[in-house]
Amino acid sequence: MSVSEEDRLARRIAEHMLAKEGTGNAWGLVIEDGAAGYSRLRMTIRQDMTNAHGTAHGGMIFALADTAFAYACNSRNQATVAAGASIIFLAPAQEGDILIAEAREESISGRSGAYSVAVRTSDGRVVAHFQGQSRAIGGTILETRTEETHNG
Amino acid sequence: MSVSEEDRLARRIAEHMLAKEGTGNAWGLVIEDGAAGYSRLRMTIRQDMTNAHGTAHGGMIFALADTAFAYACNSRNQATVAAGASIIFLAPAQEGDILIAEAREESISGRSGAYSVAVRTSDGRVVAHFQGQSRAIGGTILETRTEETHNG
Amino acid sequence: MSVSEEDRLARRIAEHMLAKEGTGNAWGLVIEDGAAGYSRLRMTIRQDMTNAHGTAHGGMIFALADTAFAYACNSRNQATVAAGASIIFLAPAQEGDILIAEAREESISGRSGAYSVAVRTSDGRVVAHFQGQSRAIGGTILETRTEETHNG
Amino acid sequence: MSVSEEDRLARRIAEHMLAKEGTGNAWGLVIEDGAAGYSRLRMTIRQDMTNAHGTAHGGMIFALADTAFAYACNSRNQATVAAGASIIFLAPAQEGDILIAEAREESISGRSGAYSVAVRTSDGRVVAHFQGQSRAIGGTILETRTEETHNG
Repeated sequence: MSVSEEDRLARRIAEHMLAKEGTGNAWGLVIEDGAAGYSRLRMTIRQDMTNAHGTAHGGMIFALADTAFAYACNSRNQATVAAGASIIFLAPAQEGDILIAEAREESISGRSGAYSVAVRTSDGRVVAHFQGQSRAIGGTILETRTEETHNG
Repeated sequence: MSVSEEDRLARRIAEHMLAKEGTGNAWGLVIEDGAAGYSRLRMTIRQDMTNAHGTAHGGMIFALADTAFAYACNSRNQATVAAGASIIFLAPAQEGDILIAEAREESISGRSGAYSVAVRTSDGRVVAHFQGQSRAIGGTILETRTEETHNG
Repeated sequence: MSVSEEDRLARRIAEHMLAKEGTGNAWGLVIEDGAAGYSRLRMTIRQDMTNAHGTAHGGMIFALADTAFAYACNSRNQATVAAGASIIFLAPAQEGDILIAEAREESISGRSGAYSVAVRTSDGRVVAHFQGQSRAIGGTILETRTEETHNG
Repeated sequence: MSVSEEDRLARRIAEHMLAKEGTGNAWGLVIEDGAAGYSRLRMTIRQDMTNAHGTAHGGMIFALADTAFAYACNSRNQATVAAGASIIFLAPAQEGDILIAEAREESISGRSGAYSVAVRTSDGRVVAHFQGQSRAIGGTILETRTEETHNG
């Protein structure tokens, strides 16, 4: 079961970002997987994440997808930000549902990238589909020199 | 200073929705204004709303805009939900910034509608621009008969 | 080389739609492949498809992606229309470039679906990425009874 | 009837862009108005702009909106391109319908901007709503020195 150095870096970056985010703890996010250009996150819908219809607030569904997108687009250790995003809401999620957001890289050209994120419940029901546009801003997330030493 | 009956209903609906949402309290939302096809909300960026770059998480900026959109598209007392949305991130917001989201109705056709939401800081800096697609699902938010009696 | 009945139907639908569209001939579209939830189209950028910068007009890049999306979301013979779409422009295309749009189904829930379309040049350069939201409107594209007779 | 210098420049830029575009003639576009951060265009839906349902192809509706967006975001004579866009399709348009796209600037921050475009028929029926994200790429559309001489 060999994991590439590239994928190991992607996971360290996701863990590093999650630890630095104010939202990570607030939303109870769990990293399920990370790889180059990829991430998978889990979040449980709590009562304080519901809308007036009593279902998961679209803002929280987006926020989960947007975070998975952020980990995927920063996974190669080039600091990137979201320039824009769009989301299609396909079916509601309920309080107590465990949502899984799976982000993958679609295309990269220069400093711009396109990512897709599928949001489903843990039992496989479709909830939403998200498209994110990334823009590299220069710089890195982790200092790889230091990290190499730590692992050496 | 006469406010139309239509606008008064829009405000009651926004207050009713805010009171029912789990997120309203969690995010510290304040309704600044409401009218038919319109709403304006305020939210202060707290530490638990920040991303790994230390600025407002895109998910929270979207969530604020999405809520203003929800109040505007339900303002005529026809129950509607978001079918989709897109957001353009124009400039970062910082912890402590007060964000104002102003939603307005652009076009309605049958059960579908288009809404725009501008997100700015309270001192007028541009943060994001949002477009939401609404879909009426049948039913109302408030029972207007009862409400009329209450106000009679 | 067995092709499933489902994929054969998808190709007949794409050919039928292309033949009925006023735009198909006008844009010189060529169907490269079709399957259930999938389509791949080709279009060459002509001078009358260029913008003021002398590169492929964003409207034509979108139009190509939107057509691939239409063939993919109608491929199961349930009549569907586009409710909305978003596109990320990653790099320009030039006059004479052959563009390939590859559409795939991401998620379906009830009458709504989400589709992704990658647009690349025939030599593999990334041009754009598209997300489409479909809505089934009832009815079919082909009368399958008749078609079965024709093929019997 | 005084028109500002700024608005006069915006109209010259729209006319200049239309003249340089391969698509302008192909689509029969007519500029109805132009001003700083604003443009209004007209296009008649022809048979070669229809889809398999016999209504205006979504790609052509987008193309019209995208062109109005391009004229509005270049109107201040800073060369800009579309980084992305999203569209909501609200109601179909028919062959023979005259479509009007009205673009306005929503927000600008640094090199990025957000624009809205409403697409309606000439008799006021709602067709679509579009949001565009612009990015300034440096340079101008017109050489203003030369133009001033021509108009002096």
